[in-house]
Amino acid sequence: MATMFTPKAIGFVKGPYTQTKDIPKGPGANHDAVGTLEISPDYEAGLTDVEGFSHLFVLWVFDRSDGVELLAMPPTDDRPHGVFATRSPKRPNPIGLTVVELLRREGRVLHVRGVDMLDGTPILDIKPYLSSVPESALRRGWLAVAEARGKG
Amino acid sequence: MATMFTPKAIGFVKGPYTQTKDIPKGPGANHDAVGTLEISPDYEAGLTDVEGFSHLFVLWVFDRSDGVELLAMPPTDDRPHGVFATRSPKRPNPIGLTVVELLRREGRVLHVRGVDMLDGTPILDIKPYLSSVPESALRRGWLAVAEARGKG
Repeated sequence: MATMFTPKAIGFVKGPYTQTKDIPKGPGANHDAVGTLEISPDYEAGLTDVEGFSHLFVLWVFDRSDGVELLAMPPTDDRPHGVFATRSPKRPNPIGLTVVELLRREGRVLHVRGVDMLDGTPILDIKPYLSSVPESALRRGWLAVAEARGKG
Repeated sequence: MATMFTPKAIGFVKGPYTQTKDIPKGPGANHDAVGTLEISPDYEAGLTDVEGFSHLFVLWVFDRSDGVELLAMPPTDDRPHGVFATRSPKRPNPIGLTVVELLRREGRVLHVRGVDMLDGTPILDIKPYLSSVPESALRRGWLAVAEARGKG
């Protein structure tokens, strides 16, 4: 068996969304909500130099979601897709991933744009966003098909 | 306390790297190693439609790393930085994140380019890569400084 670990919150999200239905979803949804990542004093030293990065990956826990659905019905489509081809919360490991823009740091509080987690969401990790796949190289499978159908 | 979860492997990485020192690191390092993500039969249904995406996020466990260092010395620099501003394995939650290019799917095996994990690494999650931050909008803090110094 693989060596596993016990997840712990390094901090919590503060943001405008208190219910899942408040979070903009689907094609064309705005993801520019501003909020903060409030890191525990125990981990503040780990933020050293983070302010030099414009964007960060935030790993967090879907703490208000239960169960696993290997086939998920996304809000953007009327047919199911495999959970690993979606951002559904009902995942074998309920970990969320969000790219945020870092607006500024105040001690152990990061002010960010792009919050799409619920207020109070536990944060697992923060990583620097180092490079992008060029948009011209991306294929987005069922999502592009659903968007085209929605627009067509 | 936050509701947490018990991490479980959904599968394992097969790749060319058996020791940490084999993995290319630092500026200019090639990340084009080819390998496979072998998903457990229990989770194969979750891969439905994943083949439509050109790139995937892979979340995995640093299973051969111990301990936490809030200040980390990256291979690319001679001064320490906060762990949340680096990709150091010695993180409060030892979760790695890699963007891979999906070459093809064969059942529950994904052939990918961009493997930078050790052979046998447990996989926690796979997510579709949906959009990029434009390179022109990225600032890369200490890493850009270290790269400029290395080149200068």
